[in-house]
Amino acid sequence: MLSSPPLLTTKQHAELGPLALRCGQVLPEVVLGYEAYGELSPARDNVVLLCHFFSGNAHAAGRYRADEALPGWWDAVVGPGKAIDTRRWCVLSVEALGCVRVDAPHGRTTNPNSLNPATGRPYGPDFPPIDVRDMVAAQKLLLDHLGVRSLVAVAGPSLGGAQALAWAQMHPDMVPKLIAAIAPARLEAQEIALYRLMKEAIRLDPAYQGGHYPPEAPPRQGLALAMGMMIAHAGGRAELAHRLGRRPHGGPEGEWAVEAWLQEEALRRSALVDANAWIAMLEANMRWDLAQGGQSLEEALAELQAKVLLLPGLGDALLPWADYHQPLVQGLAAGGREAETLALPGTFGHLAGLAHIGLAEGAIRAFLEA
Amino acid sequence: MLSSPPLLTTKQHAELGPLALRCGQVLPEVVLGYEAYGELSPARDNVVLLCHFFSGNAHAAGRYRADEALPGWWDAVVGPGKAIDTRRWCVLSVEALGCVRVDAPHGRTTNPNSLNPATGRPYGPDFPPIDVRDMVAAQKLLLDHLGVRSLVAVAGPSLGGAQALAWAQMHPDMVPKLIAAIAPARLEAQEIALYRLMKEAIRLDPAYQGGHYPPEAPPRQGLALAMGMMIAHAGGRAELAHRLGRRPHGGPEGEWAVEAWLQEEALRRSALVDANAWIAMLEANMRWDLAQGGQSLEEALAELQAKVLLLPGLGDALLPWADYHQPLVQGLAAGGREAETLALPGTFGHLAGLAHIGLAEGAIRAFLEA
Repeated sequence: MLSSPPLLTTKQHAELGPLALRCGQVLPEVVLGYEAYGELSPARDNVVLLCHFFSGNAHAAGRYRADEALPGWWDAVVGPGKAIDTRRWCVLSVEALGCVRVDAPHGRTTNPNSLNPATGRPYGPDFPPIDVRDMVAAQKLLLDHLGVRSLVAVAGPSLGGAQALAWAQMHPDMVPKLIAAIAPARLEAQEIALYRLMKEAIRLDPAYQGGHYPPEAPPRQGLALAMGMMIAHAGGRAELAHRLGRRPHGGPEGEWAVEAWLQEEALRRSALVDANAWIAMLEANMRWDLAQGGQSLEEALAELQAKVLLLPGLGDALLPWADYHQPLVQGLAAGGREAETLALPGTFGHLAGLAHIGLAEGAIRAFLEA
Repeated sequence: MLSSPPLLTTKQHAELGPLALRCGQVLPEVVLGYEAYGELSPARDNVVLLCHFFSGNAHAAGRYRADEALPGWWDAVVGPGKAIDTRRWCVLSVEALGCVRVDAPHGRTTNPNSLNPATGRPYGPDFPPIDVRDMVAAQKLLLDHLGVRSLVAVAGPSLGGAQALAWAQMHPDMVPKLIAAIAPARLEAQEIALYRLMKEAIRLDPAYQGGHYPPEAPPRQGLALAMGMMIAHAGGRAELAHRLGRRPHGGPEGEWAVEAWLQEEALRRSALVDANAWIAMLEANMRWDLAQGGQSLEEALAELQAKVLLLPGLGDALLPWADYHQPLVQGLAAGGREAETLALPGTFGHLAGLAHIGLAEGAIRAFLEA
């Protein structure tokens, strides 16, 4: 049997200078983290751009060390010989402006935890409002920096898929294809309400102090509650029922095993992120709407030029497929195009876009090669 | 045109003495609130028992005053000439032990806000753990008090439907029929997780003080966050999208109209309930499982003797119908019986069991008369 050596990768960062945001404010010094898998062609025309999900980062594939337990989040479809074949394509996985992660080697992408050059202290709650199109604008600075003027495709799960849609809208000449997994074309009222409740959870923690908490004393409980809400919504009810069900626990963490598990997961994951960055990212998501200037969502979708592969999750409770996938299909159809679609299984809920992405191997490969 | 006079009702309370709870503790003085619509027959054999939902109370039908804006929560199907016809049946709407409401004329049913005779102060966080079967046991004391020894049916929405199922299990000779709308036969892991998060929200509020808050300074923000989570899950995404959608707000309450609406609703409704009672009720719901003593849910359902009418909500996101209704149908089928079912429309989510109950008028009438 043949066995490929593990794909080893490093986290890189680019200093990209100032960025004028859509809110009217300017970020004077934008830094983006990214990872690259595969070789850039001499003409720099073989780039597949990957964008990440809400609580993600640029570590989409491979490992930082050969003995690392888990690879990046789309490793099942990114690598030599895989669906997004790094022997052919140069995959650039680029962080989103506002990236919530603060755990090394992440944490340098510009976000509310970054130092404000005007004050020498972190922006904190004074970080300017950002949105998905600002994320694309920052990533465009990175591509300019790298001398990349065209893309093979833009792809990503969840917020990453939203960025892919925004890329196709903002730079139609650069983006012939996009792959949007478990992705929204805009956030609907139900999820705006949910995200608002997550904001409230963080702000309710007295340690939050209106966002002016010291780095060593973050609002850990409030952030864990917000994270718990995200985990509970993004996970799969079938998987939770099977794995924990109504198993009693009886410890101080609660009567039920699912309570203890949720508490532990929420505390663990919330330690990886910054509370002000989390709030800024919630707000950026709440602002996300592919439609602009009074157009309907259908009109905005009908204007897209890129070929589209959609990978909705059948059990997605965070962005229910009937409510988020169906409008995408209808809007593209209004523009005279049929989106290719492969529905991912429901077991893991929204996280099917990560946990089950390997099932889309053939669909992604064929879509990129067509 | 004929026009019936409005059904006028009054809230009543019965002092029922001690109740031994399933946890082993004893409540020395149980009080239950109730309302009665229609006349008790001389044989006291024409009673339809109504049980209420999580944040509900006994005010199921009619008005306290003729000029009151809104009638009780199932007024569409309870009254003279209506599906549960008070010219024929005596409808007893009985509160659940632990009822969370504290707004007059509610608030006297025994709950953590009640005075503990041993201390002369409210039980607060020291209220003993209760469950759905304790609610039934307390209601049985009320029926004994009123001299009622048999029932025509037990009916209710959500937690009220769970009580109806528990009634049929605990007193098969008294309950020939049950009507369970938007009701769980047990709480599944996903909802146990959600309810845990609501508990966390209340406990995160520094005003909660481990449950020892003074009556004049309750944990209003934490309770509002928990209430907001309940509202967001119980409401209908279609209705929310239609009514508020992505409408901007821009006030201090948030960028989006849905944020301002949710905040206002959550604060308004949380003022009607007690925080410790809310937590006790969350825990009682988390404990709810029709199966007991190691039996499967299917076995528990197969043992029920009552005829069953199920009214699931097609758009229910709090208790998704595929996850909660399907096991009910299958368990009853395992016992050789077919549940009558009418699915309520999805627009209002879980609240279809209240907002759309009028659509079940014919089904309820026929079920009771058969």
